[in-house]
Amino acid sequence: MTTFVTLTQEEASQLSHEILTRYGYSQPHAAAITRNIVAVQRDEGHSHGLYRLISCVDTLRRGGVSPDAVPRIEDTAPSVVRADANNGCSLLAFEQARPLLIDKARTNGIALLAINNSFHFSALWPEVESLAEEGLVALAMTPSHAFVAPAGGSRPLLGTNPLAFSWPRPGRDPFTFDFATSMVARGEIELHRRAGKSIPDNWAVGEDGLSTTDPEEALKGAMLTFGAYKGSALSMMIELLAGPLIGDVLGHETRPATTENSGRPWHGELLIAIDPHKLLGDTMHYHLEHAETLFEEVLSQGARLPSQRRYEARMRSKETGINIPEALYKELTMLRDTSL
Amino acid sequence: MTTFVTLTQEEASQLSHEILTRYGYSQPHAAAITRNIVAVQRDEGHSHGLYRLISCVDTLRRGGVSPDAVPRIEDTAPSVVRADANNGCSLLAFEQARPLLIDKARTNGIALLAINNSFHFSALWPEVESLAEEGLVALAMTPSHAFVAPAGGSRPLLGTNPLAFSWPRPGRDPFTFDFATSMVARGEIELHRRAGKSIPDNWAVGEDGLSTTDPEEALKGAMLTFGAYKGSALSMMIELLAGPLIGDVLGHETRPATTENSGRPWHGELLIAIDPHKLLGDTMHYHLEHAETLFEEVLSQGARLPSQRRYEARMRSKETGINIPEALYKELTMLRDTSL
Repeated sequence: MTTFVTLTQEEASQLSHEILTRYGYSQPHAAAITRNIVAVQRDEGHSHGLYRLISCVDTLRRGGVSPDAVPRIEDTAPSVVRADANNGCSLLAFEQARPLLIDKARTNGIALLAINNSFHFSALWPEVESLAEEGLVALAMTPSHAFVAPAGGSRPLLGTNPLAFSWPRPGRDPFTFDFATSMVARGEIELHRRAGKSIPDNWAVGEDGLSTTDPEEALKGAMLTFGAYKGSALSMMIELLAGPLIGDVLGHETRPATTENSGRPWHGELLIAIDPHKLLGDTMHYHLEHAETLFEEVLSQGARLPSQRRYEARMRSKETGINIPEALYKELTMLRDTSL
Repeated sequence: MTTFVTLTQEEASQLSHEILTRYGYSQPHAAAITRNIVAVQRDEGHSHGLYRLISCVDTLRRGGVSPDAVPRIEDTAPSVVRADANNGCSLLAFEQARPLLIDKARTNGIALLAINNSFHFSALWPEVESLAEEGLVALAMTPSHAFVAPAGGSRPLLGTNPLAFSWPRPGRDPFTFDFATSMVARGEIELHRRAGKSIPDNWAVGEDGLSTTDPEEALKGAMLTFGAYKGSALSMMIELLAGPLIGDVLGHETRPATTENSGRPWHGELLIAIDPHKLLGDTMHYHLEHAETLFEEVLSQGARLPSQRRYEARMRSKETGINIPEALYKELTMLRDTSL
């Protein structure tokens, strides 16, 4: 059983900000990181919430991130923005490039943002959702940490390569999804190993390239993508778009923060924003309402929308505060309070 | 056993052109349709090759398509082209809008093409591949025929919603994929029914919304997407992007050509083209070569690239001619030769 500690949004933000600045992050970086992880924690996204403060500090201690980098925002082409994070965290680069991305999408109909040379650890949905809140349709993707074999392969090559999408809904929370293209998170396999449980046969292959239900074998071998060869193709697309297309690394060249002698999960990110108003003009309202019929039909079948649980968690957090596991809370306050 | 008839590319094209014009398609439509389906047949894509001539004629006879529609190409915004197919086939609209899409991608870095009011039956890969041959990275998607339930649902709502992607490879065939987001084609379930075989439990649900291995139950119920809730989310994204975003219909509003009193598989299509040169400038060549390391690693594991079989078929067809099943060949020549 996990015991939770409840904080107000202000308390959670203050805790995050104090830890980040204490270990050397500049005010702007600490603020951008705090906004992201508190938003995720508020939605009960524990894996990408305040927990990530630990790796933010760890990566900094290992020299894996510049704590006071000033992103360079470049107007590359009429529909292209480039944000060089200058070895800093991706989140500040995104925030600073965001107004120009929005402006270009509104002017030209569609625009692309490439974030390069960045320390990247965050969930993508807060970024696409922040664009949907401006009335734009948004996509985001990153290549990340090669734990995954391509369909038919036997060795880690592809990242866990998340894809996030957000669609503006008039008067409602956006329709948003954000999923890794790996079948499960690597941590899930680790949890099964610790519990001595077998894993489903479509999660991973052993070193021999054959499907395995043994978590030990799986951790020595490679994870699989979701959706067999289709998921594998999609994952390769993400590698290409958020890698070579924007002049950045492939998944097998990113460096997990957990490896010895290495401290930076370092890779690019690609975002695409589309302005429905530029495409549809005065008919936009009609077509956005039309899209609602799709969501209504999903719900009327008793199915759920992808972001539904998260929005329910957000409502709860607004009413009762932000919940974080007590053990994590203790670890974070220790990080804040012990002498350096 | 299927017996095949071998035709030269010219013979296959002539057969297609004669059939299409005989039943009333204008020269430009007949030419555009022929180019697409002969290219697919050449790659041994039997389901979307010359076989589709039958439904092209059938749809026309039912009054489901304008055989001589002149597409209207509209320069909607700096990075947006709109092609109103004017109730004609999507393929001519694509061909006529393509130069402006390419031009906009090269000028602005990224551009979007929306095809509306179109009779649509074709594989998407020839379109994205034709953009990759111009050095662009391309995506295409359509919502199509609601046979698929959302994850957790029980009734057909989503289309089979294909997604196609192509990436230019210097001196090589592009890296291309084109897959339906349904687990399998509906025809696969029909084939199992006819053969009295059960289907895997992740292909479909019965009318009760529960997973079924009985093809009869599956055909009464709904197909499933590939990749469970992730595939379902992706399919919904395609519905939204190639539907309401471009002012067109959702999957459950498209009309299959096989239904009585209806003769048009009618829906929109969205394409996105990105110019790597505009993003990368002089470093483009380096980064495209870098992308090759991903493909090499896939192959070195003994895995295949998504389009590999198709390119091998293309090589065979170049050497020995285009193969079509004899029964289909007879049906097509009859369509060409019987008096109207």
